[in-house]
Amino acid sequence: MAKESPIPVVVNGAAGKMGREVIKAISEAEDMTLIGAIDRNPKYIGQDAGEVAGCGAIEIPILDDLQATLVMATQERVQGVMVDFTHPDGVYDNVRSAIAYGVRPVVGTTGLSPAQIKELADFAEKASTGCLIIPNFSIGMVLLQQAAIQASQHFDHVEIIELHHNQKADAPSGTAIQTAQLLAGLGKTYNQAIVEESEKLTGARGCVADDNIRIHSVRLPGLIAHQEVIFGAAGQIYTLRHDTSDRSCYMPGVLLSIRKVTQLKSLVYGLEKIL
Amino acid sequence: MAKESPIPVVVNGAAGKMGREVIKAISEAEDMTLIGAIDRNPKYIGQDAGEVAGCGAIEIPILDDLQATLVMATQERVQGVMVDFTHPDGVYDNVRSAIAYGVRPVVGTTGLSPAQIKELADFAEKASTGCLIIPNFSIGMVLLQQAAIQASQHFDHVEIIELHHNQKADAPSGTAIQTAQLLAGLGKTYNQAIVEESEKLTGARGCVADDNIRIHSVRLPGLIAHQEVIFGAAGQIYTLRHDTSDRSCYMPGVLLSIRKVTQLKSLVYGLEKIL
Amino acid sequence: MAKESPIPVVVNGAAGKMGREVIKAISEAEDMTLIGAIDRNPKYIGQDAGEVAGCGAIEIPILDDLQATLVMATQERVQGVMVDFTHPDGVYDNVRSAIAYGVRPVVGTTGLSPAQIKELADFAEKASTGCLIIPNFSIGMVLLQQAAIQASQHFDHVEIIELHHNQKADAPSGTAIQTAQLLAGLGKTYNQAIVEESEKLTGARGCVADDNIRIHSVRLPGLIAHQEVIFGAAGQIYTLRHDTSDRSCYMPGVLLSIRKVTQLKSLVYGLEKIL
Amino acid sequence: MAKESPIPVVVNGAAGKMGREVIKAISEAEDMTLIGAIDRNPKYIGQDAGEVAGCGAIEIPILDDLQATLVMATQERVQGVMVDFTHPDGVYDNVRSAIAYGVRPVVGTTGLSPAQIKELADFAEKASTGCLIIPNFSIGMVLLQQAAIQASQHFDHVEIIELHHNQKADAPSGTAIQTAQLLAGLGKTYNQAIVEESEKLTGARGCVADDNIRIHSVRLPGLIAHQEVIFGAAGQIYTLRHDTSDRSCYMPGVLLSIRKVTQLKSLVYGLEKIL
Repeated sequence: MAKESPIPVVVNGAAGKMGREVIKAISEAEDMTLIGAIDRNPKYIGQDAGEVAGCGAIEIPILDDLQATLVMATQERVQGVMVDFTHPDGVYDNVRSAIAYGVRPVVGTTGLSPAQIKELADFAEKASTGCLIIPNFSIGMVLLQQAAIQASQHFDHVEIIELHHNQKADAPSGTAIQTAQLLAGLGKTYNQAIVEESEKLTGARGCVADDNIRIHSVRLPGLIAHQEVIFGAAGQIYTLRHDTSDRSCYMPGVLLSIRKVTQLKSLVYGLEKIL
Repeated sequence: MAKESPIPVVVNGAAGKMGREVIKAISEAEDMTLIGAIDRNPKYIGQDAGEVAGCGAIEIPILDDLQATLVMATQERVQGVMVDFTHPDGVYDNVRSAIAYGVRPVVGTTGLSPAQIKELADFAEKASTGCLIIPNFSIGMVLLQQAAIQASQHFDHVEIIELHHNQKADAPSGTAIQTAQLLAGLGKTYNQAIVEESEKLTGARGCVADDNIRIHSVRLPGLIAHQEVIFGAAGQIYTLRHDTSDRSCYMPGVLLSIRKVTQLKSLVYGLEKIL
Repeated sequence: MAKESPIPVVVNGAAGKMGREVIKAISEAEDMTLIGAIDRNPKYIGQDAGEVAGCGAIEIPILDDLQATLVMATQERVQGVMVDFTHPDGVYDNVRSAIAYGVRPVVGTTGLSPAQIKELADFAEKASTGCLIIPNFSIGMVLLQQAAIQASQHFDHVEIIELHHNQKADAPSGTAIQTAQLLAGLGKTYNQAIVEESEKLTGARGCVADDNIRIHSVRLPGLIAHQEVIFGAAGQIYTLRHDTSDRSCYMPGVLLSIRKVTQLKSLVYGLEKIL
Repeated sequence: MAKESPIPVVVNGAAGKMGREVIKAISEAEDMTLIGAIDRNPKYIGQDAGEVAGCGAIEIPILDDLQATLVMATQERVQGVMVDFTHPDGVYDNVRSAIAYGVRPVVGTTGLSPAQIKELADFAEKASTGCLIIPNFSIGMVLLQQAAIQASQHFDHVEIIELHHNQKADAPSGTAIQTAQLLAGLGKTYNQAIVEESEKLTGARGCVADDNIRIHSVRLPGLIAHQEVIFGAAGQIYTLRHDTSDRSCYMPGVLLSIRKVTQLKSLVYGLEKIL
């Protein structure tokens, strides 16, 4: 890849936890180069983005002017990419600006409404500009979900256990609910009972998500983020498990998205679409 | 052990699933010998107990007369043991009869009330006769529970997952509830929350057993009987897991009980007391 | 399915462990019917196949004349299927005979050489007759292997742990080796070291199978048959695990094969081809 | 505990990874107070120990003069403790100095020879001063090892799997070898074979540690530090597993050691002795 011009990348939200991780990952990738770093936090404005990210000085200062940086990106020889890990309230405008300047957005920020996503899709379509909105950059989790969909064609019984640190307030996790939804879309009813179940203590059997799939949520200090999908049939159990230990696990998905968005002409939602 | 006289054993409930397994186990143990096999099921009366158990003829017919067999046991050179895996409605009388004849009972039958156990304890005390009542013969499960009690002195956070085949109607399992009770007796409150938890789907966080310990019950075909106790603290997880795949797992506990009951002079409840 | 004529099935090796399981499974399937049961073991000749299988009398005696039974199968209204779980030395002839009579073979017997398989493929081709040779009927294991192949496109590091009862003499298991081979065919080199590894005790790091994939074989009583494929990348682990607890787990694969072979016109090798 | 005077603690190796973690832990403990921080690394001399540790300024500068700091410790109302996470080449002298000043050492630094430990034990004995040498501060791991010792009295079959990140060069891990040694000291031979095993690929069955206990070492990115001890018997599996995700897991063991060493009059080796 080294022979082609590297992809110029702007990171928006450069001083946040994900932004720093992205800057480190880009600094180690041969086929892309950081050309701009944006953050709204005044504490970091003017600091070297590499120093803030903890990967050494890279002579790219953190600025707070996205427009100017996008203009700069348009002057590169190859089309640029903006990675956005900012806040729900600003992400819509950021993405519109990037598309307007011909810079491809890769959006990890959550909070866009379905209506906003529809508008951005129309806007990207008209501009023939690639745009990726990725709620979960974990390639491992997408693989798990795809393998679960495959398995559900042959197993009629499945439950989900998700385990997280005890700082997580809500249960079940959004990703576990999403896994159940993906399995539920396949037109079958899971887990038909063969005995009449009764709970001696309420909640023992977990919650019931889409299509009768039960989810159990464990919360303990020492856990990080884990999901287990367990399929059962007579004489066998088939288990898919994903363990996340730190944010670096999202970087292969971010880098893949940067590479893929330059080949797209419209908005695409979800990492599974580009694997 | 071969030099001493083998322990003479009567199996009551010889044609049941556990009775057969016990007869097989005794036939392979050098220090004990089957001298009688009792069952109420007319289908098996008169059949060879070894043939019924599937371990080959042993020339001990299955009979339905417990009294006569106990009398026979009293004529052995060493004191006999009666293993009882029968029915809740007859077990109290069986145990009284055995003690009356000086035969030591090892009782796996469930259903004795606390009052009945108290009476049998008094009766055994007066007769200076050992008697074991063992609700769960699984040495592995007792080890798990004892290790959990040890761990609970150093961990303040714990949850339990138990997984069983989908023919099990009740949840959580009695053994999981018992594990929680054992941990709860130690005078601390587990799992103090550091965030305000909310369930987006009711039941996600499982049921709350004694002392704020949550239990999650999974039911799937292909599972057999499994229990997992998960302790968490900053930076670490400590997990104890027991998997049962068939009834043979109870035999080491049964054989141990047969050996130990001959050394006792009173009633003892629970396998953990004799490990 | 009940409206169409059920598929007539002959089970060859009817008194063996797998044969009995197959007869039970067919007796519960609405869209197929057992019309013949063959076994070479003189002990079972003449006995009712259902009684031997443990599912109650079905008025099909176990015979030892395959030819006559195949002739009988040709007189059914719809084309028949022969399920073969016999011995390596007879399977080739059994399959040729079945094809000659227009009965579709589903072969679980191992031991056919590549040359024999080629010959049978040619023979089936000329006869335009479906034939399935299935070394492993476990749908769960095939799903695991297919999910592993998917995952290997995004993970560069993988190890395999297989765990079996301690009556298994050879290590690693054939299925674990096969999983490694499937991953190895994808044209990448796994598990490139970033430090110079050293074994303080020889064998600690397991064996090295195809394409630098390590396999670890655990043997313990209490285990049955388990395989775990563990993919690792920065910040994440993705694990696929299959647990087998009894032969019933193969029956969905056998029944699927019976249904599919009637739609084929040539020999197909491997369950993954028909999922 | 707040009523009693807090334990004054000196941290030697204050700028190292473990030292920083210890300083954070002490800053959150009510019954102890940091009175000195020592490090040889010139880069940190004079900096605030709390700032270096990442827990905010505490007005304790990092110094490089252990002797002076020990003198200072002797002027506290209650006896002080020195926590040592330094280098193998200096630890012996550090411990002698501390004992000479009546400051109790808690030593996490590895590398002391058996002869040195013996000398320090004699020296502590004469001085009637407590001293703790703790090769592994993980309470979870000690609990696992103690539970394994309990289990080994009832299980005759056991294997160990340890899993670490692929930056770990040696295999098996020291802790896994130690677990095997602890189980080996109990006077039995594990894992007596019932079939003649053969390895189709060398190393499949792992390495053989003390007393015929096999260890399997998995190395993958995404793993951190994990140990699994699997006991097997007919019909059951009992598994103990410990997962470490970061250094904070050692802090309960360090704090416990600080509290306990003040009650000792001699040298004690190993966390298991004070649990």
